[in-house]
Amino acid sequence: MSEVVKETQTPPVVMSGMRATGRLHLGHYMGVLRNWVHLQNDYTTFFMVADWHSLTTKYEDTLRLPEYRRDIVLDWLGAGIYPTKATLYFQSAVPEIAELHLLLSMITPNKWCETDPTLKDMITSGELNYGLLGYPVLQTADILAVGGSLVPVGKDQLAHLEISRDIARRFNHTTGQVIFHEPRPLMTETPSVIGLDGRKMSKSYQNGIELAFSEDETTKAIKTAITDAKRLKKTDPGEPNDCVAVFPWYQTFTDASTCETVASECRAGSRGCMDCKKQLAEAVNEQLRPLRERRSNYAQDLSQVDAIIDAGNTVAREKAGATLQKVRRAFNLV
Amino acid sequence: MSEVVKETQTPPVVMSGMRATGRLHLGHYMGVLRNWVHLQNDYTTFFMVADWHSLTTKYEDTLRLPEYRRDIVLDWLGAGIYPTKATLYFQSAVPEIAELHLLLSMITPNKWCETDPTLKDMITSGELNYGLLGYPVLQTADILAVGGSLVPVGKDQLAHLEISRDIARRFNHTTGQVIFHEPRPLMTETPSVIGLDGRKMSKSYQNGIELAFSEDETTKAIKTAITDAKRLKKTDPGEPNDCVAVFPWYQTFTDASTCETVASECRAGSRGCMDCKKQLAEAVNEQLRPLRERRSNYAQDLSQVDAIIDAGNTVAREKAGATLQKVRRAFNLV
Repeated sequence: MSEVVKETQTPPVVMSGMRATGRLHLGHYMGVLRNWVHLQNDYTTFFMVADWHSLTTKYEDTLRLPEYRRDIVLDWLGAGIYPTKATLYFQSAVPEIAELHLLLSMITPNKWCETDPTLKDMITSGELNYGLLGYPVLQTADILAVGGSLVPVGKDQLAHLEISRDIARRFNHTTGQVIFHEPRPLMTETPSVIGLDGRKMSKSYQNGIELAFSEDETTKAIKTAITDAKRLKKTDPGEPNDCVAVFPWYQTFTDASTCETVASECRAGSRGCMDCKKQLAEAVNEQLRPLRERRSNYAQDLSQVDAIIDAGNTVAREKAGATLQKVRRAFNLV
Repeated sequence: MSEVVKETQTPPVVMSGMRATGRLHLGHYMGVLRNWVHLQNDYTTFFMVADWHSLTTKYEDTLRLPEYRRDIVLDWLGAGIYPTKATLYFQSAVPEIAELHLLLSMITPNKWCETDPTLKDMITSGELNYGLLGYPVLQTADILAVGGSLVPVGKDQLAHLEISRDIARRFNHTTGQVIFHEPRPLMTETPSVIGLDGRKMSKSYQNGIELAFSEDETTKAIKTAITDAKRLKKTDPGEPNDCVAVFPWYQTFTDASTCETVASECRAGSRGCMDCKKQLAEAVNEQLRPLRERRSNYAQDLSQVDAIIDAGNTVAREKAGATLQKVRRAFNLV
């Protein structure tokens, strides 16, 4: 018997998620959300707020979890995810995922979890909890519950997905039933946006632009961007390639001819860093305007957002319930 | 704030369970069930067929799981557990336990699982699965889900219960809410019944008396019992203290004066081993007769048994659902 489920789903199911640890920033948009917006047109898409996953490292402080969860959905909707196209849902609203996780844990060698290369980075409190060790098993349950066969990933998540493939294969093999797709990676070009201080853009560094920022907040944040430290006066000739954050952002957010003008004026000492940042802020605001408008419309009608989430939860539960029933049957539990 | 929930439950909740790995034998009855029969009169009792736990080591062969599960309940009912007194239910029929297990896993240090002293004995396939490692976490969810505050245990399970107490305490401490009792052990005198071949009584050794055995099967099995190997002829004087299984069984199943007679006749060489076994079989059958009658009555009306289980499942789900809702709230998930 073949252990590979043929791609009979039309269109294939793309599953992805984000942990509920705070508002999203421009890095999330450029790296992930922009891609999701495209995917929703070509695939059946399930986008999940991973609130249980948030507990793996943040279990001690969950007070703002409800706010974070909804903020993330607001950010998604603002970014252009359409609830008529994609299913948006909360992980914790789909209890079937927890049972699937438990059942998959029975066939998952512990060493697969232990050798997960991202595990070390995730141990923030210095202590490894049983739930954190099982991160890849829960992630597998997330994917398989909704029949995910394609998972958009960056290079750093390939190892996780490999475990998911192994678990799906092992389940099919162990039970002699072909229930799961082996989820495949959907490798995506993800232009990384450097933080305004030159480090990785991260909420905890306060070096990014939140999608919920106003135009003024954006302009103010960009004013703090680090440029070329050697350049002291406006008339000093600068070197765009040594500019820490501003020129790289021009390269991401403006076209080639703008970049060329900026670079030559910088080198000629005819463009000061403050002017340069002001122009950049305008370009960034220009691009974020439609996102903000959508986000703000939704933010003014939170009951609509909650209704979208409720509807998504229902769709995800139905799908997960059907999957779980097959798994229970394969283990002769029903 | 005190982290100990006062025993406000009247009467306290006793929770216990058995893995669904086959029919029960006399060892289970003498060691566990007889005790449960007493407990049901004094406490609120939840007795669970741990079918998910069966998967931790038996996930590859679950074909007979449905049969095993029901057989166990039949054995319980035969032993004198009354469905009007105790709640009998299947673990897998209470999905709330799986979610509770997942949530508890987030606050359980992995080293608590790793240092579980019974873990090594449970690794039957030579491979440690993630689910097996989490055995004590799942067991904790079993207990806490139904508000268990007392758990009947033998010495070998004290370590497991210690982990459950630690998890309950840690949850209360972490969330700052006092949701769980720290379950206490209910140490019980459990007369162990040796197998008929002198080894531990075990299904896999075929050295016991199943509760479902007929009188003939019982007599036949007892005929295979090992006695005093030095005694070759009926008229040889025997030594009851060297008798591997038969005299010890007399000590368990008959009164002191019978034992005295048997011992003196054996020593005098006036009692042959075959006669001695025949008399023992009668004594054992005598004791098992009421159990068998009850068991057989239930076995003739399996729809009644299924109805008992369904009703138990409903009660357990309601209780577990209420517990889970508190836990979700404590983690700000609802």
